[in-house]
Amino acid sequence: MTLNVALIGFGTVGSAVYRLIHTRREAFKKLIGQEIRITDIVIKDKNKKREIDSFTRITTQIDQVLSNPEIDVVIEAIVGVEPAFSYLSKALEKGLPVITANKVLFAQKGDLLKKLAGKNATTVGYEATVAGGIPIMRTLIDLLHVNRISKVEGVLNGTANFILSDMRTESHSFEEALALAQSLGYAEADPSNDILGTDAFYKLMILCQTIFGQTPAWSEVPVTGIHSISAVDIEVEALRGNRYKLIAEATLNDDGEVEASVKPQLIDNEHPLYGVEGVDNAVTLHTDLLGTLTLKGPGAGGNATASAVFSDLVKCTEFLSISKVKAPV
Amino acid sequence: MTLNVALIGFGTVGSAVYRLIHTRREAFKKLIGQEIRITDIVIKDKNKKREIDSFTRITTQIDQVLSNPEIDVVIEAIVGVEPAFSYLSKALEKGLPVITANKVLFAQKGDLLKKLAGKNATTVGYEATVAGGIPIMRTLIDLLHVNRISKVEGVLNGTANFILSDMRTESHSFEEALALAQSLGYAEADPSNDILGTDAFYKLMILCQTIFGQTPAWSEVPVTGIHSISAVDIEVEALRGNRYKLIAEATLNDDGEVEASVKPQLIDNEHPLYGVEGVDNAVTLHTDLLGTLTLKGPGAGGNATASAVFSDLVKCTEFLSISKVKAPV
Repeated sequence: MTLNVALIGFGTVGSAVYRLIHTRREAFKKLIGQEIRITDIVIKDKNKKREIDSFTRITTQIDQVLSNPEIDVVIEAIVGVEPAFSYLSKALEKGLPVITANKVLFAQKGDLLKKLAGKNATTVGYEATVAGGIPIMRTLIDLLHVNRISKVEGVLNGTANFILSDMRTESHSFEEALALAQSLGYAEADPSNDILGTDAFYKLMILCQTIFGQTPAWSEVPVTGIHSISAVDIEVEALRGNRYKLIAEATLNDDGEVEASVKPQLIDNEHPLYGVEGVDNAVTLHTDLLGTLTLKGPGAGGNATASAVFSDLVKCTEFLSISKVKAPV
Repeated sequence: MTLNVALIGFGTVGSAVYRLIHTRREAFKKLIGQEIRITDIVIKDKNKKREIDSFTRITTQIDQVLSNPEIDVVIEAIVGVEPAFSYLSKALEKGLPVITANKVLFAQKGDLLKKLAGKNATTVGYEATVAGGIPIMRTLIDLLHVNRISKVEGVLNGTANFILSDMRTESHSFEEALALAQSLGYAEADPSNDILGTDAFYKLMILCQTIFGQTPAWSEVPVTGIHSISAVDIEVEALRGNRYKLIAEATLNDDGEVEASVKPQLIDNEHPLYGVEGVDNAVTLHTDLLGTLTLKGPGAGGNATASAVFSDLVKCTEFLSISKVKAPV
């Protein structure tokens, strides 16, 4: 038996997933009792050079891939709502389980994709959409069986956090810190989504949907970036032991509504997110039974994100074997 | 359908589990589609007054409980290896899934219990044995599907951590801090297991067994408590921004052997466990793909521990329904 995977996208995350599946083939076989094989990769530009073995088909045509009856799972690692949404909808309608690392897509269409998965008796994994390798979705879904979560707050953008950390510890200006983040490969050529808080906002909306089953009206969520914090402010507050962090938070109020915001906050060393430095991400959950739980780890990077995708893939194989057992009932 | 639970022990954890199952009955039914009922509670002293409803049988006889064919799951929340080990072995031999919150038992007999569970096609849940409500075992088992863990380090004893935090922030002596911990109910009348590092040692051995599939020879693990750290030391180092933490750590060395220790360490604010204050626990995992992941939360307390037990119970019902589905094949 072989588990046949179709991969959409071969950028940082897609290629890391490909390499991980290749290098861990033996470990995976031991774990799930099946070979795993990436049979197809869907890319945009066929002429780009890529290190992909000759047994894998490279195509620009999603329909060609989805019409292959051998495909068991679809992993999507591209950017933006389209064509990702169309691709995954088609896959789900064929009953295929899908795994996505695409936060903009999942923030906007996650609820729809989950419903579509339910309707077609399949699943959608999205661990990699929030906080990279930190297993936050799995932890949330498990905690929510038992706990009520009243509030979530997180440092959800590694680039913004790196810039704030670097300005404080190295006395850099905003421009210097940003340039350093870009030279280290943390920030994109156009870093506006990181700086302005938009990236953290998308991740927060995914957290809200999972935790509270709803999001506030997007247009009513105040989103403030880090560009207006001056180096002098950071330095003066550092002397007092305080740190600026770009914090995304959401609370369930007494009327059962979710209130959310993304904004820089000045926090002291009592705050659970105080120690989140550099490109790390962290999420703090306020629960009724368990108390306050914080998960901290790398929020981005190909390997960390591929690890989250792979974890969804393992979960997916559990689901598949259950489905097969249940099918004849 | 009803899920019938036998509960062994009615101390802090046992009674919290009982109350949780009672108050969350409706939520549980919605989640797993079954009623849940604690049918039997095994206690030591029948004359002690307890708030237990009249439908629940109270007994001192484990055999009477285990011979009841209606029991689906056994939850054990007592202290020490015996009689817990005998009780759980009998339950596993009958094919019953068991859940334990007993760290001394699980450190010493966990491997045996797991083997016994495997032999009898059932499971043993032990989330509550390490770091209270922090879902560390679940996270570990999931991470290990994908990641190799080279090192684990943790603040695993809330009482010792409370004392060290309190000595630093309140300039208390060791004796004053200990007395405060006792008056707040954090430390036992005999706090030696907390102070001397024994409690952290047991939890570390459970982590080693789960992460590395082995433990070092117990007698070769250096275990140093916190009693020898002076208030002056703590104060002087605090001025330098350093903190003492009782850290339990284990590393897989190049020869494939596990090296472990429990000892107070002086750490600076770059260390992932620096921000673990008061009775909180935390565990840091060093992994190959994911990087460094830290989980922090309440390490003890009836509700937090009951939340971990309940999480195992949910997992257990998943296992039971899978078993039932698979049975006719």
